[in-house]
Amino acid sequence: MTRAWEGGAHVTVESRSGAYPVLVEPGAYRRLPALLRDLVPGHRYAFISDDVVGPLHGEPLVAASRAAGLAATLFTFPAGEGSKTRKQWSILTDEMLSATMGRDTVVVAVGGGVVGDLAGFVAATFLRGVPLVQVPTSLVAMIDSSVGGKTGVDVKAGKNLVGAFHPPAAVIIDPEAARTLNARERAQGLAEAVKHGAILDEGYLARLAQHASALLAGDVDATEWAVARSVELKADVVSRDERESGLREILNFGHTFGHAMEAASGYTLRHGDAVAAGMVLESRLGEALGVTDAGTTSRLEDALSAFGLGSVPSVSGGAAAALAFLGADKKARQGRPRFVLLRRVGCVAKADTWSREVPRDTVEAMLTHGMGTGG
Amino acid sequence: MTRAWEGGAHVTVESRSGAYPVLVEPGAYRRLPALLRDLVPGHRYAFISDDVVGPLHGEPLVAASRAAGLAATLFTFPAGEGSKTRKQWSILTDEMLSATMGRDTVVVAVGGGVVGDLAGFVAATFLRGVPLVQVPTSLVAMIDSSVGGKTGVDVKAGKNLVGAFHPPAAVIIDPEAARTLNARERAQGLAEAVKHGAILDEGYLARLAQHASALLAGDVDATEWAVARSVELKADVVSRDERESGLREILNFGHTFGHAMEAASGYTLRHGDAVAAGMVLESRLGEALGVTDAGTTSRLEDALSAFGLGSVPSVSGGAAAALAFLGADKKARQGRPRFVLLRRVGCVAKADTWSREVPRDTVEAMLTHGMGTGG
Repeated sequence: MTRAWEGGAHVTVESRSGAYPVLVEPGAYRRLPALLRDLVPGHRYAFISDDVVGPLHGEPLVAASRAAGLAATLFTFPAGEGSKTRKQWSILTDEMLSATMGRDTVVVAVGGGVVGDLAGFVAATFLRGVPLVQVPTSLVAMIDSSVGGKTGVDVKAGKNLVGAFHPPAAVIIDPEAARTLNARERAQGLAEAVKHGAILDEGYLARLAQHASALLAGDVDATEWAVARSVELKADVVSRDERESGLREILNFGHTFGHAMEAASGYTLRHGDAVAAGMVLESRLGEALGVTDAGTTSRLEDALSAFGLGSVPSVSGGAAAALAFLGADKKARQGRPRFVLLRRVGCVAKADTWSREVPRDTVEAMLTHGMGTGG
Repeated sequence: MTRAWEGGAHVTVESRSGAYPVLVEPGAYRRLPALLRDLVPGHRYAFISDDVVGPLHGEPLVAASRAAGLAATLFTFPAGEGSKTRKQWSILTDEMLSATMGRDTVVVAVGGGVVGDLAGFVAATFLRGVPLVQVPTSLVAMIDSSVGGKTGVDVKAGKNLVGAFHPPAAVIIDPEAARTLNARERAQGLAEAVKHGAILDEGYLARLAQHASALLAGDVDATEWAVARSVELKADVVSRDERESGLREILNFGHTFGHAMEAASGYTLRHGDAVAAGMVLESRLGEALGVTDAGTTSRLEDALSAFGLGSVPSVSGGAAAALAFLGADKKARQGRPRFVLLRRVGCVAKADTWSREVPRDTVEAMLTHGMGTGG
C-alpha cells in the first residue's frame, strides 16, 4: 500500500467515489500548485482556512498557486471550534457563490480538524458537491481527520451531528508543517496515533513511545514516519468500510467515553486528551468484563504517559454528567451507547459486531471509579 | 427493467450506494407501513411533510404506521418554495435531534418537489446521512424529482445551489394521490413527462398527447402508466450516470432556458411552464444551428399544447434579464451556459459531451425573438 514517491509516502484510499491518494512528503507545500494541477484539475480553486493558519500557510499557498497560473482565492473564518457551525458554513458558501464559482471549482482545505470538517462540508454541499483537497496543517488532521471523508459541523445538541461523507479527491501532507505547532498541540494528534497502534499494530505503539520526544519536538523525519504509518493503518480500515457500518467502528476506540467527557466538560477538555483518557477507561472496562487481557490498560497508560496523555480528568458535574451524554452519542443505537473493546494491545475484540453494548451498572461503576478520582 | 408487482410497476435504480426500488402501485399508501418495515427497516421513522400535504397524506400515513407498530413521528413546515431554505433545514434537523433520533432513523418525505428536496437534504446530512424514503404526492415529484437522488435548498444566489446527492432507499408512488391535485398542478409534472419523450422515446411522446385529457383529469390508470414509463426512462439514465457527469445531462433539456426564465421572473413562473417553454426555445435553437431536424419544434409544441403548455412567456426585464441568469446556471462551465440539443424527437444530439456551448449571439437572437413576443 505504501511506495516510495519523491522521497515521501503515497497511500491510496478506496472510496465509493473512487480511490484517492494521500501524499506524505516533506516539502510537499512547495510543489502544491503542480500537485493540484496534476491530481485535481479545476477551473477555480477556493482555498479555505482560518485566520490563524491562513496567514501562515493559506496566503503563501494561494500566492504560489496564482504565480503558477491557477485561479486561486482564499476564504478565511475566525479560528476555533466555535466556527464549526451551520452559520459559518452558510457564510463560506455564499462567499463562493458571490465570487461566481461554479461546479468546476475545487475546495482546498488548509488547516486543522475544524478547517477540514467545515471546508469539507462546504465542498460536500456546494452545488451538490465539488472536489475537495485536504491540506492538513495540524498533527490531529494529518494523523487522523483528513483521511476518511467525514465532514460536518456542530449544533447545539452536540458535535458533528450535521454533515456528510465526502471523500477528498486528494490529501496532501507536508510533515514540515508540524514544526509550526507546539508540543501540546502535537500531543493531541499523537493520541490518535497511539489509538491506531492500540487497535491495529502493537509494534507501532511501542515505537511511538520510543520516539515520543522526537515526535513531541516536531522532528520532521519522526513526524513523517508516524503520519505515514497512521495514514496507512487508517486508510486500510476506511477502504474496507467507508461508512462506519462495520470495521470502521474500531476507530471509535476511546471515543465513546472520550466524547462523553468532552461534552460533560462543555468542550473545555481537548479532543486528544479526552480520547487518551477514554482509551484508558475503555481498556479498563474491557478488563473488568474479562474481554481485554489483564495488563493491557497499564501498557496503554505507559505509552500515553510518554506523550503526557492518559490521565483521567475529573469532570465538572462528575460521572453522572458524562453518563447523560453517553446515550446521546451518534453511534448509540436505540439510545444505548456502544463500546469498542480491545482483546489486547494491537487487536480489537469482536462480538457480533465491532462494537457492543455494556450493562449500564458496569459502565456507571467504571465512570464513578475512573472519573471521581483522577486529576 | 419493469415487472408486474402486486398490480403495479417495480423499477430498480442503480446508485453508488446500492440499488433502490421505485414502486408505482395504485393503493400503495394503504400498505405503506408494511412496505417501510420490509424495504427500509429502522428504529424510528421521521415523516416530513408540509402543512398542506401533512393533514391530507402525512397524518393518516403516520397514524397507520403507528398502528402497525412503527415508531413514527410527523414533522411539518409551511408549504411552498419559500421554505426550501437552510433555515428550515436547520429547524427540521434540530427537531429530529430534540426527539433524540439517532442514526437508526429513517426519513420519509411525503409531499411534492419541495418536500422531497428539503427532507432529502435533511436525511443527507443528519448524523452524516440516514436512509430516505420518497413518497411523492405531486405529479412533478412522481414523474421526476423523487427519482435520482438530488436533494437541496435554495439560497439568495439561486435555486438548488446547496445540496447533496443522496439516493433514496426506496421510492413509493401511489398514483391515486394524483386525484388530490388539480389539472394545473398535474400539467406541471406532465411537462417533465413530455421531456422524457422528447429526449428518449418518440412513441411515448405521441401517446402522452393522445391521453392528455385523462392525464390532466387525474385518471388513475393513465397516471400509473405515465409515471411508470417516465420513472423507467429516468431510472435508466441515472443508473448509468448518477452525478450528471455524462449521460444524465440529457435530463436538462429545456432547463437551461427554463431556469433562466424562472429566475428572471423572480420565480413567479412555475417550473413545468418554464421547462415547457425552455424545450420549445432549445429546440428552436437547435433548428437554427442545423443540429435539430426541421419540424421538431412544431411537433414538440403540438404535444405540449395538449397539456396547455409550451407558450413562451414574456419576462419582466425582457431577454436581457434572462440572459444575465444563463451564465449563473449550475451547469455553466467557466461561466458559459451549456445546452442539450435534440437531433429529433426522441433523440438527443451528442457533441463531445451531451451538452454544448452555443455562440452568445445565437442565444441572444433566440431569446430576443422567443421571449419578446409570446404571451
